[in-house]
Amino acid sequence: MTPNIDVTHDPALRSWVESANDGTTDFPIQNLPFGVFRHDFEERLRIGIAIGDQVLDCLAAARAGYFDALGPMIVDMLQSWSLNALMSLGREEARAVRGATSRLLRADTAEGTSAATKRDLLLVPMALAGMTVPAEIGDYTDFYASVFHASNVGALFRPDNPLLPNYKYVPIGYHGRASSIVASGTAVRRPFGQTRPADTAPPVFGPSKALDYELEIGAFICGANTLGDPVPIGRAEERLFGLCLLNDWSARDIQSWEYQPLGPFLSKNFATTVSPWIVTTDALAPFRAPAFVRPPGDPAPLGYLTDPNDADHGGFDITLEVLLRTARMREVGAPAVHISRGDFQSMYWTVAQMLAHHSSNGCNLRPGDLLGSGTVSGPEAGSRGCLLEMTRRGAEPLSLPSGETRTFLEDGDEVTFRGWCERDGAARIGFGECRGEIRPAN
Amino acid sequence: MTPNIDVTHDPALRSWVESANDGTTDFPIQNLPFGVFRHDFEERLRIGIAIGDQVLDCLAAARAGYFDALGPMIVDMLQSWSLNALMSLGREEARAVRGATSRLLRADTAEGTSAATKRDLLLVPMALAGMTVPAEIGDYTDFYASVFHASNVGALFRPDNPLLPNYKYVPIGYHGRASSIVASGTAVRRPFGQTRPADTAPPVFGPSKALDYELEIGAFICGANTLGDPVPIGRAEERLFGLCLLNDWSARDIQSWEYQPLGPFLSKNFATTVSPWIVTTDALAPFRAPAFVRPPGDPAPLGYLTDPNDADHGGFDITLEVLLRTARMREVGAPAVHISRGDFQSMYWTVAQMLAHHSSNGCNLRPGDLLGSGTVSGPEAGSRGCLLEMTRRGAEPLSLPSGETRTFLEDGDEVTFRGWCERDGAARIGFGECRGEIRPAN
Repeated sequence: MTPNIDVTHDPALRSWVESANDGTTDFPIQNLPFGVFRHDFEERLRIGIAIGDQVLDCLAAARAGYFDALGPMIVDMLQSWSLNALMSLGREEARAVRGATSRLLRADTAEGTSAATKRDLLLVPMALAGMTVPAEIGDYTDFYASVFHASNVGALFRPDNPLLPNYKYVPIGYHGRASSIVASGTAVRRPFGQTRPADTAPPVFGPSKALDYELEIGAFICGANTLGDPVPIGRAEERLFGLCLLNDWSARDIQSWEYQPLGPFLSKNFATTVSPWIVTTDALAPFRAPAFVRPPGDPAPLGYLTDPNDADHGGFDITLEVLLRTARMREVGAPAVHISRGDFQSMYWTVAQMLAHHSSNGCNLRPGDLLGSGTVSGPEAGSRGCLLEMTRRGAEPLSLPSGETRTFLEDGDEVTFRGWCERDGAARIGFGECRGEIRPAN
Repeated sequence: MTPNIDVTHDPALRSWVESANDGTTDFPIQNLPFGVFRHDFEERLRIGIAIGDQVLDCLAAARAGYFDALGPMIVDMLQSWSLNALMSLGREEARAVRGATSRLLRADTAEGTSAATKRDLLLVPMALAGMTVPAEIGDYTDFYASVFHASNVGALFRPDNPLLPNYKYVPIGYHGRASSIVASGTAVRRPFGQTRPADTAPPVFGPSKALDYELEIGAFICGANTLGDPVPIGRAEERLFGLCLLNDWSARDIQSWEYQPLGPFLSKNFATTVSPWIVTTDALAPFRAPAFVRPPGDPAPLGYLTDPNDADHGGFDITLEVLLRTARMREVGAPAVHISRGDFQSMYWTVAQMLAHHSSNGCNLRPGDLLGSGTVSGPEAGSRGCLLEMTRRGAEPLSLPSGETRTFLEDGDEVTFRGWCERDGAARIGFGECRGEIRPAN
C-alpha cells in the first residue's frame, strides 16, 4: 500500500472559510480532522470537521443534502452523536467523507460556492464548540514504543539493566482505563494514592507528590476483527482511522509502589487527556516517513511484525511540543513556556506494528478503540517526553523563566501538547492542542 | 450496613415453577439472578431472571404489567436489551425488582397465582435461552486478591522472594480487556503469541504451549461516581450489583515473556469467560462471612481500606469447583472430573476493599463495569485455582482418571467452573456454570 496522495492534499487548495487559508492554522482544508462537539448550550452531540477557526457541523451539512452522494448509510452516520458508526466502516468510507468535505469547503467548486451562502447554517465558531472525547472508547491500550523513553526510565529504576530483554522483540503494551479518558481542557484532579516514601517505613495514603505528564500520540481504530482472527501486519493500516495527541498523566510515586508484578494501575487511571480532533490517516499521507532504523546489532522484528513497506513509509513525521504554564505565570500574564519537543518518527515500533501485535493472539479491536503510543522521547536532552525523564526522577529540577523550578507538577500547572506536520510541497497541518490543568487533591 | 435478610430469602418459600423447588437447582426462588438472553431464533436481547430450569422473560413480564408497582422508569429498564440501565440505578432498585420478582414467582401470592396461568408467556426454558455477557462492560479490571495464589505463583517465578513487599498493603490489580469477554459456552481459540522457550535463543511466534485457566469471581458494578470522587470503603458495597464466575484464561508462556515491566497483556486478552447469571449481592446476604483474618505479623489495612464491618461480614461464603473434561473423555462418554475446589472466603482482600481501592484515586466506576477477584486459591493442595499452581509450572503433571496427564490445557479440553452457597437455615443457591472448550490455534 502506498500512501494515498490525492487532490485533497493539494497545497494550492483554498477554502471559502478564510481562516483556513492563513498558512498558520492547524486546520487548513488539507487537514479536515473529525471531532464530536456540543454547540453552545445545546444538548445534542454532533460530528464536526475542523476548518480554520470554524467547525463544519456534519448534522447540518447532512440535513442540507451536502453528503447525499455518499449514500444514505453514511449520511445517517454523519448525523450520529458519535464517530463510532463511521469508524465501524473502514478507511475507504472515511476517505469518501473527506473527499466530499473537501469539495464542500473549497473556494473553487460548485458545492463550495453553494455552501458559502449557507455559512451560518453549516459552521460553528470553534470558540463556541464544546469538544468531547471524539469516540465512545470501548478499550484503551497504552504502548511503550519509544526505546529512548524505555531506556531513560529503565535506567532510573534499574541502573544495571535499563532495557529489559523483551523490549526489542515485543511491542510492550498494557490495558488502560477507558472511563477516565477526558477531552482537552478538562481539569485534572491530583490523585490520592498509596506510596512508600521510605523503604524502612510502612506506606502512606495521601495526595501524589510526583505528578507527571507523558507526551503521546493516540491512534483510533476503525473496522472490526472477529475475536480469534488476527489482523496481519500488511492490513494493519486499514484499521487506523487517525491520530490525536494524548497525555498519559502519571503519578510516579503511586506507580513505583504499585506496579509490580502486574503493571501500572491507579498511577495512571485517574485521567488520560486526548486532543479532540482526530487527524485522519488520509490527511497524514503526505507526511509518511520511514520507520525507525534499528541500530546495528538490534534484532529484526519477527515475521508477524515485519511489513516490507515500513522502510519506505511505516512512520509518521509529526513534530510534538510540550508547553507548561504555572499559576504564577498566569497571574503575571506570562505565556506558557516550551519545555520539550518530540519527534514521532523516533518510535521503535510503528503504529501498524502495535496494532498487528495487539491482535496477533486473536484479540478483537473494535471501532473507536484507542491505542496510546507510549511516551514520545528522543535521544537528545530536549526531547524527553515526561518530567520523570527530564528531571531524572526529580534529581535535576527544571528551571522556568518565571524563576520557579519543577521536579514534578504543582497544583495550578497547565500542560499543553501541540503537534504538527510540515514538509516541502505540502500544506502544514496540525493537531490542535491537548491541554489540562492540575487541580488540588480533594 | 448489616446484611439485608428479608422475606425473599425464606427457605420455606416455594415457586409455582416446580423445578425451582427440588433442593438441588442453583436457581431456587431465593436466588433470582439476572442475565441477558436471546430466545431461540429471535434477534432481540432480553433481560431474564433464572428460576429453576426456566428463565423469567422480563420483557414479557413488564409488558404484562407485573412490574407496574415499581414505577415506569424501572419498567422501561426491565424491557431494555441490557442490564446497564438497571445497573445505573443502585442496590435499592435492584432489591425492589428482586422483591417484585419473588412475589411474582411464589406459589402462595396473588401475583404468583396469576402469573402461573401465563406460564407460556412469561417463561422460556433455559435450554432454549441463548445467554450472552450480562452487561455492556465498559471497563474490566482484574485483581490478585488471593495471598495463596500470589505466594504460589511468586514462588515459581521468584523463589527467593515469592510475595512482593506491596502485596499486603495494596489490593494489586490491573486493567483487562473488555472486548474479549465472552459468555459461558463460547469456545476459546488457542492463541498465537511470542514466547522465548530458551534464554539463549531468540523468541519465537506460534501457538501457546502453556494454556491455563484461572478460577475467579467477577463482580459487576452498579451506580456511578464522578471522575475525581472516590467511593469510601463504607459505601463500597452499595456499588456492588452482584457476582458471577469468571475464567481468566492465561497463556503462561506468552505471559512470562511479555509481562515486564507493564504487566500481562496478550497472555490474557484473547478471552475471558463469565457465567451468564449475576447473583445479586442481595441474594448473597445470608452467605456473608467474616473477611479473611490476617495472620499475626501482617500489617492492618490502611485507613481507606478499613471497614469496621469486615470482621463481621466483609466476605462471601462461596464454594467453587473446577471440572475438566478432555476430548478423550467426551469420546468415551466419561463425565467431567473434579480437579480442584476453591473457597472465596480465603481471599486476602474483600470485594469492597478492591472497589474502594480502585476508586481511591478518583477513578470513575460505571454501571456494568466488571472486577475480577484474581485466582481463588487456598492453602491446601486441592484448592489451587489454576494449572500453573497445581502442576508447579508443569513440573508435576496432573493425572486424570482417563489415564491422561495434563501440565497445561490441550485442544479439546473443556473447563467448567461451578459455584454455590450452602448454609444451615438458608436455601442453597448457585451460580450456574462458567464453561469453555479449547479449540486448536488457527
